[in-house]
Amino acid sequence: MLAGSYIGHNTITISERVAAPPGPGEVELAVAFTGICGTDLHVLHGAMDKRVKPPAVIGHEMSGTVTAFGSDVDGWAAGDRAVVMPLDWCGSCPACRAGNSHICQKLNFIGIDSPGSLQERWTVPARVLVRVPEKLSLKTAALTEPTAVAVHDVRRAGLEAGEKVIVVGGGPIGLLIASVATTFGADVIVLEVNPGRRAIAEDLGLRALDPVTTDVLAFVEDWTGGAGAAISFEVSASEAGFGTAVSCLAVRGRLVVVAIHSTPKPIDLQRVFWRELTLHGARVYQQRDFEAALDILAEGRVDVERLITRVLPLEQVASAFDLLDSGRAMKVLVDCRAERGQG
Amino acid sequence: MLAGSYIGHNTITISERVAAPPGPGEVELAVAFTGICGTDLHVLHGAMDKRVKPPAVIGHEMSGTVTAFGSDVDGWAAGDRAVVMPLDWCGSCPACRAGNSHICQKLNFIGIDSPGSLQERWTVPARVLVRVPEKLSLKTAALTEPTAVAVHDVRRAGLEAGEKVIVVGGGPIGLLIASVATTFGADVIVLEVNPGRRAIAEDLGLRALDPVTTDVLAFVEDWTGGAGAAISFEVSASEAGFGTAVSCLAVRGRLVVVAIHSTPKPIDLQRVFWRELTLHGARVYQQRDFEAALDILAEGRVDVERLITRVLPLEQVASAFDLLDSGRAMKVLVDCRAERGQG
Repeated sequence: MLAGSYIGHNTITISERVAAPPGPGEVELAVAFTGICGTDLHVLHGAMDKRVKPPAVIGHEMSGTVTAFGSDVDGWAAGDRAVVMPLDWCGSCPACRAGNSHICQKLNFIGIDSPGSLQERWTVPARVLVRVPEKLSLKTAALTEPTAVAVHDVRRAGLEAGEKVIVVGGGPIGLLIASVATTFGADVIVLEVNPGRRAIAEDLGLRALDPVTTDVLAFVEDWTGGAGAAISFEVSASEAGFGTAVSCLAVRGRLVVVAIHSTPKPIDLQRVFWRELTLHGARVYQQRDFEAALDILAEGRVDVERLITRVLPLEQVASAFDLLDSGRAMKVLVDCRAERGQG
Repeated sequence: MLAGSYIGHNTITISERVAAPPGPGEVELAVAFTGICGTDLHVLHGAMDKRVKPPAVIGHEMSGTVTAFGSDVDGWAAGDRAVVMPLDWCGSCPACRAGNSHICQKLNFIGIDSPGSLQERWTVPARVLVRVPEKLSLKTAALTEPTAVAVHDVRRAGLEAGEKVIVVGGGPIGLLIASVATTFGADVIVLEVNPGRRAIAEDLGLRALDPVTTDVLAFVEDWTGGAGAAISFEVSASEAGFGTAVSCLAVRGRLVVVAIHSTPKPIDLQRVFWRELTLHGARVYQQRDFEAALDILAEGRVDVERLITRVLPLEQVASAFDLLDSGRAMKVLVDCRAERGQG
C-alpha cells in the first residue's frame, strides 16, 4: 500500500509500505480522507523533530472504514465507518489519575508520536475509534477532529447563549470556534487580517473584521454597550492578537488560549487583576467533544465543507502540503481511498 | 478632631479638621484602628495622584464604633462596633448589572477615591458597615479588610480541601492567603525571599521557603509526586515570581493574580496551553468574603495579631508610613481612638 512519510529536510514523500496487521485490541482502517493541519506543517518544517523521527507517517484528522481487527475487539465490524480520536493516554500519571487523561503527561498523540493516517491502511487501538453517524459523509467526517478542538475550546470558555464573543484569528480552527460558538447561541465577531479568510468567514455566515483597519476596542465598546466582550479566543499566535484578546474583555471576561505560542508574550496583568479576567488554556478534546462535533456535523449545523479548499489524492501529498504552506488554502484534504483514481 | 492627610510630595501630616456630620443614610464612626497597606504607600509616593488629589485623608483598613447617624439608617445604634467594606458602587454600569458590583466600572473605593479612616471620626454610607462579632477585639477587627482580600482570592481559586498550594510572596496579603487557604484545608508553601517575613510565616504555622536558594520546581515536583501544584497565588508583583507561579502548576492548575503589576510581564502561553492552566484575576472582595473573614478572625482560626509589627498613635501617622516604607514592618496600625494617649 502507499503511505506519505515525512523524511526530514522539509520533505514528505510517497512510498510503498506493508500494512501493519491489527494485534489484540487493534483495528485496521481503510483511510478515506486525511486533513492536513498546522501541526503537520510544523512537523514538515522540522520544528517537531524531537517528537517525530523521520521517516514517519503523520496525519491525524481523518475518516475511514473498518477493514480488519485483532482479538479482543468488541462492537466493531468490517465496513463500519469511524473517525479516530488520536489520544492514547497512559492511565497512570497524575493528570490521568486526576481525570484529565486527554492531556496525559505521557500522551501518545497518534499521528505525531506514533504513525498517522496519511496512508491507505492504518492500524490503531480500537478504543480510539468513534462511530460516524449514517447521514454524515466521510469527506465531512474528516473534519471531525478540528471541529472537536473547537467544541472543546468553546466548552472551556463556559459559553452561554447570548454572550458576545471575539475570535482573534480566522484560520480553520478560528472559524470552527466561531461557527460552534454561533451554534451554541453566541454573538460572534472574527478578527482576521487576510481578506480571503474573511470572505470564507462570511461564506460560513460569520461576521469578520480586519483588525488592522478597524479600531477593535472602540468597536467592542460600542457593540457591547461599554461592557466589553464576555469571551475571547486567541487563535492568532501573535503578540498583537493576544493583547487584543485581553483588552477587549468585560469585567469577569474569559480568554481561551488556543494558539500555540512558541515564545513568551507580554501580558497586561494589571488588566487581568482590575477586571478579574480569567484565562484558560485549551488543548485537544475529550470524548464528549468528539461526540458533540459529530452531532454538529451530522445535523449540518456548520457547513464545514466550505473550509475545504482542495482535495488531492495521496500520490500528491507533497503538493497538498505545499498548497497549505503557501497560505492560499484553508483546509486541504488528502484522498487516501483505494478508488481515489476514479473520483 | 485630628486627621492624617496626604498633602503630596511624599508627605502625610496631621491637622485639625471638622468632622463631617452624617447625612441621610450615613453613619459617623469613631475610628478605633486603621491599618496601612501597600496601596496607601503608593498614594504617599504620588503614584495614584490621578485618583487621590491632595490634601486627602486616606485609609481603608479599619475598625470603629458608631457615634451618630443621619436619617434613613436602620439597624445601627450608637456604640455598635463595625468595620467598613470600603466599596461604593454605582449600581448601573455593565459590571454592576452583571452582578459584579464589587468591581463596578465606576467604583468609588472609599479611602482612595473619597475620604478615608485616618482620622478620629469618619462618616460613611451605612450600607458599607459590617458588624463586628462580640468576641472579636477592635484591634484584630482592623485586619478584616486584608483578610477579606485573602478569602476572596482563595474563593477565586476554587480551592478544595487537600489541594497543594504555592503562595508566591510572603507579605501581609500573601501570609493571609496562605493562612486562609490552610484553614480551608489546603497544604500550603509560601515562597518569600525576606528571612524576617519567612520567620513570621513560621510563627503563623506556615511552611516558607526561600525561592533564591531552593530549586522551587524540583521541590514542587517532589512534593506533589510529579503532578505540580493545584493552585498558585501570585502576590510578589515580580517577573520571576509570576514565572514560578505559572511553571509550578499541575495539569488544569489555577493561578490567581493578586499582586498589582504596573508593567506587562512575559507569560509562557505554551505552558498555559499545554497543561490547560487557568489564570484568574482577583480584586477586592464581596460581602460574603467580609463575613467569612470576620468569622475566621472571631474564631481565632488565623492569629492575625502576629502580623502587626507596631501600633502608633494618630499623631505619629508619618512615622507609621515611614516604618512600613522601610520594609522592616509587616503590618502597622494607627490608633485613632480618643483614649489613645492613655494606652
